Amino acid sequence: MTTHWRERPIGIVGLGLIGGSLGLDLQAQGLEVRALVHRVSTAERARERGLAQRIETDPSVLKDCSLVILALPLDRLLDPHPDLVAALPQDAVITDVGSVKQPIQERWDKLHRRFLPSHPMAGTAQAGVEAGLTGLFQGRPWVATPTAGTDSDALASVRGLAEAVGAHWLECPAAAHDQAVGLISHMPVLVSAALLQSADQGGSAVQAESLVRALASSGFADTTRIGGGNPELGTLMARTNRTAVLAALEQYQRQLGALKGLVEGEQWEALQQQLSQCQALRPDFL
Amino acid sequence: MTTHWRERPIGIVGLGLIGGSLGLDLQAQGLEVRALVHRVSTAERARERGLAQRIETDPSVLKDCSLVILALPLDRLLDPHPDLVAALPQDAVITDVGSVKQPIQERWDKLHRRFLPSHPMAGTAQAGVEAGLTGLFQGRPWVATPTAGTDSDALASVRGLAEAVGAHWLECPAAAHDQAVGLISHMPVLVSAALLQSADQGGSAVQAESLVRALASSGFADTTRIGGGNPELGTLMARTNRTAVLAALEQYQRQLGALKGLVEGEQWEALQQQLSQCQALRPDFL
Repeated sequence: MTTHWRERPIGIVGLGLIGGSLGLDLQAQGLEVRALVHRVSTAERARERGLAQRIETDPSVLKDCSLVILALPLDRLLDPHPDLVAALPQDAVITDVGSVKQPIQERWDKLHRRFLPSHPMAGTAQAGVEAGLTGLFQGRPWVATPTAGTDSDALASVRGLAEAVGAHWLECPAAAHDQAVGLISHMPVLVSAALLQSADQGGSAVQAESLVRALASSGFADTTRIGGGNPELGTLMARTNRTAVLAALEQYQRQLGALKGLVEGEQWEALQQQLSQCQALRPDFL
Repeated sequence: MTTHWRERPIGIVGLGLIGGSLGLDLQAQGLEVRALVHRVSTAERARERGLAQRIETDPSVLKDCSLVILALPLDRLLDPHPDLVAALPQDAVITDVGSVKQPIQERWDKLHRRFLPSHPMAGTAQAGVEAGLTGLFQGRPWVATPTAGTDSDALASVRGLAEAVGAHWLECPAAAHDQAVGLISHMPVLVSAALLQSADQGGSAVQAESLVRALASSGFADTTRIGGGNPELGTLMARTNRTAVLAALEQYQRQLGALKGLVEGEQWEALQQQLSQCQALRPDFL
């Protein structure tokens, strides 16, 4: 017999951008939120910000929770502290927010019988206890990757949570999720980073460093935003989703090589046709 | 004996984003602006928008102008209509707004003795007679590429014009300009376009087209903005700046290949170091 997830407190582990935002939105829905954080100083600041009703550094704060969200970085999800694992209530539904799902699924299948991997896809420009904000998940995708063994109550609970904060619910296999985010999110970080490096290196090569910097426009700023983002996060994505990222990079190198071939061969009509297709494609992704 | 550029009307050829915006800003400075456009319908709409005091389709409108700005697309700058060339006053200073300077310089050096190539670097998301807006050039770079043969009065006039509309004046050789914009502006269009193509092709390959589209975030939107832009403009840039674009692409492919090598070799510390350098580099370009 399972309790409805709303009838008992909700637990959040980690009060960064995702955890803190969830805490704010869930409390606004009248739910009781209990949070576990690593540092005493984080707990103090999170209390000042009102990110949860109870905020502790002792894992026992999670006792009695019906649903616990592990809002931790990928590396800590893949190598969780034994005290955290031990403190998770056996009958609670557990989910995470990691941007790679297959390795997390493999790890957590052995750690908790009611674990459902999920991934709320919300902005990550800010991090830390100051980052959480209300309405972050509104209209954003929240992907879950259930397996044949996932219990239906766990699925319904996490879906209920995602929809309560306004997210758009999606389900797919973990492998498909990881390939998709590899293409759309992880590989593009490297594509964007290489652009910053080549503007820097290429500028030096033609002795025009300051000119290159002076002429960079809003287009360059947009194209390099994700490549100039959090280096730990970019590295973790590549590390934990390595196979998909490499496959996406090969795909990318082929496409770029083909466009370069058109420039080399002065095939301007064909190039314009390709760029027209890109122009037509982009709205599908927005 | 030359007249100061402000003492006679200013001519603008073409009233798209750049020409129309110049018309609005120069009139706001109390200057008389006369414009030449190609189509009668454009002239009518430009008059309704008040983009210049006189707007005609007959090149004789440029008679008496002290300074004429050729605000035309690259292909029309490289292959100008003979009637336009014939109508440019011999004693006027002529400049253009093209995003590639060396081929324009070579072409126009033979067409007008007081031609100074220049390039106001202002946004180009919109185009056409509806696009012009006030303040477009405020704080943006306006690059001129004088040669030993450029007369100092021509240089002073175009600089005066650029600074009158709030632009930040820069001078450099045409070749350096073209290499810099190849790196910072033209090559990135192809880098960004290939990302759209690989998300599309890669999504099909893993039978996850709709998932890839559903999961695309604001990061993907930013990174693909210039690749999904005007295909005619992207092609013209590659065509007229082919050598610099190819050199920039080679530079880019080397950098991306090196990052890929780190992922292949699981050199996570080195990857994080590279991404940290990118994070530190980016503010230099903003």
